[in-house]
Amino acid sequence: MTELTTVIHDASEIVVGPGTDTPLERYENAAIAVTDGRVAAIGPIEEIIDEYPAENATHAIDASGQSVIPGFVDSHTHGLFAGDRSDEFAAKLGGERYQEILAEGGGILRTVSAVREASDDELLANLLPHLDTMCAHGTTTVEIKSGYGLDTETELRMLDVIRQADEQHPIDIVPTFMGAHAVPEDEDAESYTDRVIDEQLPAVAEQGIAEFCDVFCEEDVFSVEQSRRVLEAGMEHGLTPKVHAEEFVRLGGAQLAAEMGAASADHLLHANADDRAALAEAGVTPVLLPGTAFSLGADYADARAFLDEGGSVAVATDFNPNCHSQSMGFAIALACVGMEMTPAEALVAGTHGGARALDRAGEAGTLREGMPADVAIVDAPSHIHIPYNFGVNTVETVLKDGEPVHGGQR
Amino acid sequence: MTELTTVIHDASEIVVGPGTDTPLERYENAAIAVTDGRVAAIGPIEEIIDEYPAENATHAIDASGQSVIPGFVDSHTHGLFAGDRSDEFAAKLGGERYQEILAEGGGILRTVSAVREASDDELLANLLPHLDTMCAHGTTTVEIKSGYGLDTETELRMLDVIRQADEQHPIDIVPTFMGAHAVPEDEDAESYTDRVIDEQLPAVAEQGIAEFCDVFCEEDVFSVEQSRRVLEAGMEHGLTPKVHAEEFVRLGGAQLAAEMGAASADHLLHANADDRAALAEAGVTPVLLPGTAFSLGADYADARAFLDEGGSVAVATDFNPNCHSQSMGFAIALACVGMEMTPAEALVAGTHGGARALDRAGEAGTLREGMPADVAIVDAPSHIHIPYNFGVNTVETVLKDGEPVHGGQR
Ligand SMILES: [Zn+2]
Ligand SMILES: [Zn+2]
Repeated sequence: MTELTTVIHDASEIVVGPGTDTPLERYENAAIAVTDGRVAAIGPIEEIIDEYPAENATHAIDASGQSVIPGFVDSHTHGLFAGDRSDEFAAKLGGERYQEILAEGGGILRTVSAVREASDDELLANLLPHLDTMCAHGTTTVEIKSGYGLDTETELRMLDVIRQADEQHPIDIVPTFMGAHAVPEDEDAESYTDRVIDEQLPAVAEQGIAEFCDVFCEEDVFSVEQSRRVLEAGMEHGLTPKVHAEEFVRLGGAQLAAEMGAASADHLLHANADDRAALAEAGVTPVLLPGTAFSLGADYADARAFLDEGGSVAVATDFNPNCHSQSMGFAIALACVGMEMTPAEALVAGTHGGARALDRAGEAGTLREGMPADVAIVDAPSHIHIPYNFGVNTVETVLKDGEPVHGGQR
Repeated sequence: MTELTTVIHDASEIVVGPGTDTPLERYENAAIAVTDGRVAAIGPIEEIIDEYPAENATHAIDASGQSVIPGFVDSHTHGLFAGDRSDEFAAKLGGERYQEILAEGGGILRTVSAVREASDDELLANLLPHLDTMCAHGTTTVEIKSGYGLDTETELRMLDVIRQADEQHPIDIVPTFMGAHAVPEDEDAESYTDRVIDEQLPAVAEQGIAEFCDVFCEEDVFSVEQSRRVLEAGMEHGLTPKVHAEEFVRLGGAQLAAEMGAASADHLLHANADDRAALAEAGVTPVLLPGTAFSLGADYADARAFLDEGGSVAVATDFNPNCHSQSMGFAIALACVGMEMTPAEALVAGTHGGARALDRAGEAGTLREGMPADVAIVDAPSHIHIPYNFGVNTVETVLKDGEPVHGGQR
C-alpha cells in the first residue's frame, strides 16, 4: 500500500513545466497528490480530489490564492566558501577598482586562503545556513562547485563537505569539481593545469564524489587548449564537462563546450550567433547568470537571442562571495527585468532549464506524474508575481519529495 | 519608575545614523537600552550593560554576530491600492508597449477603477499584508499617498483607510493627499486641478487626516502652474508640499519644490545641476526611487551628483502596482548597484534621509538618546550585508518603540 504523503488542493495555479505549444503548461484551480514522495496525480482539482482525498494525506495543504511551481533548480553556484568579502563590495562602490582590490590580496584568492584555513566543520557550518536560505526561497536542487582549494587536499575537503551537507540537508546537492577555477599564486596556468589533471582529478575520481568537471575558460585564466585538456581528463574519470565560457571576452569556451558535448556552457555574455547555434546543435544548455552582471554592474547576456533562435536556457544564481544572492526568485526577476525574458520563460529556465544543465531533466524541474514532488508554493495567485514582486521572497512553503521542508500549512 | 523595555546586547555593530565627519556613526560590540519605548543609552557594551542589565529588561535580545540599525523610513509609497496588475508586467516583457497597455485600459486608471469599486474593508485588507511585508523587511515608518480615487469620496476613503491601518498596525504611517496623481478619464487637467483645489482639498482638510500634499508635475499630467496652484492651496489648508518632479522630462517640478519649500522632490531622473543646487539651497530633500527605474528598465537618478555636490538624499521604494516591491533593503541594494552609492550612504538615505523627507528627522531614522527605539536587526555582522546580500531579506528582528513587532529573540 502506497502512502498518500501530501495533497495540495485548491491552488489558483499549478505549473507543470514547459508546454509543447505554450511557454508554460499549467492548470488553474488545481490539485496535486503525492504518493511515496512522487507526483501521483496533477491537474484540475475535480480530476484529482475524488481519488486522492486531502483528509487521507499526511500533509494536506490548502493553496487557495497561491501558485504551486516546481522547486527551483539552481544549476550554478560556488556556495561553499569561507571568509567575508562584503568589504570588497563596499570598496568597489567607494570608487576602488576591482584590480586594485586584487592587488591588495582581495578577490578569489582571498577566499582560497580562507577556505584552506577553515576546518571541515567550519566549512560545513558556513554552508548549511546558505542551504536554509536557498530552501526558504524555493530551491530544492542546487549545484555547488569546488574550486576555492586549488590544491588536492582542499579540493577533496570541499567535495567531502558538499557530500556531508547533501546528507544532512533536505535540498539535493549536485557536486561539481572545479580545480581549474583560478590559477594559484606563484604558479603558471600551464603547470597548474598539469597538476589539476595529474594530481587532483585522479584523487577526486578515487573519492567518487563529483559528478561534473568545470573550468574557467577565460583570458588570463585557462586557455581553450588548457580547458580542453582538463575536461578531457575529467571525462576519462567519468565526470561530465561544464564550461565557464565567454564571460569577459569571447575566447572560445562555448565552441569547446559544444565540441565536447558539455552539459552546460555558463555566463555567455560575449557569445555570438555562431556560438549560440553550436550550443543548440550540440544540445548544450546555456546557463545565464544575471545576478553576476547585476552585482558587477556589467551587461546582461543576450537571453532573447538564445530564446528567439529556438534554444532553451537555464537561469541560475551564481551565488558566491562576489555575487552574494541565494535567491532564485531574484535571479528570475533579473532575467525578466534585465534580460527581457517573460515570467514564464524565466520560470522554466529556473526549473526545467536548471535540471537540463544538471542532466536531471527526468528527475527535477517539472511536476509530472512519477517525478519527485519537489514543490515551491508561492503566496500569490500566479507565478508572474515571482518577478513582479522583485526583491521580496514570494515563496511561502517548500516540499522536497512531498515532505514540507520550509513553511507549512497556513 | 521608568520601565526597561528592551536591552539589545553584544551586537557586532550598532548604527546610530549619519556622523558629523564620517558617513556613518556606529559602535562595534555594542548595546542599546530602551526605557518607555525610547533610546535610554547606546554605545559600546561596557558603557551600557552595568547601568542597564539585560536581565532586568522585558525583552533581552542577544545580537551577537548581528548589525543593529535604525528602522527604515520608506518616504514614498502608493501602497494602498486594489486589483492585480501583474499581467501588465508580463505583457510589457512580452513586447507590448506600455502605451498600448494604457490604451487597453491598463495603467494607473485601471487601479483607480479597482479602488473606486473596492469597499473600505477590502482596501484595508489589501493594505495590512503589505504593511506586514514592509515590517518584516525592516520598515518602521512608511509614507502612503492617496491618489487612486481622483474624486472626493474615494480620496477621503483612501485617507481614512490609511488612518485605520495606522491605528491597527505597529508601523507608523504618514498620510499624504495626492488627488493630483493623474487626470481622470474624460476630464482635462485644468478643470480637474480646479476640482482638486475647490472640492477635494477642503474636504481633506476638514477630515484632518493628511499631513502632506503631493502632485505629479509631469508633461501631459499636471503643469508647473497647475502643480503650484494645488500645492499653494494645500499649504493654505496646512498641508506641507511634496512634488513628483523631473521623472520623464525636465519640466520644472524641482524648482517649484525649492520655491515652495517642499519637504521633498521625488524621482528627479532629469534634474540638472541648477535643480540640485536649488533643492539644496532650499533644504528640500531629494527622494530617489531606484526601484522605479529598475522595474521600468529606465536609467537611474544621478545620486552621485546629489551627494558629491554636498547634498543629502533619501531612498525609498515607490511601492505601487507598477513598482511592486515593499523591500527597503532591496531599494538600498539598487541604490548601491544602480546608483553607485556606498552601503553607508544608502543606509543613511533609507533611514535619516527618509525621516527628513517626512519632516521627522527628530523622531525617526536615527538611534540617539531620547529617540523612539525603532530598530531593525540584520542577521549579518555589518550593514554592508544589506546590499551585499541583494534580493534576500537580511532583517531578522524588528522593534517599534522598543517592542518586538517582527521576529524575536534567537
Ligand atoms: Zn561560476
Ligand atoms: Zn510616486
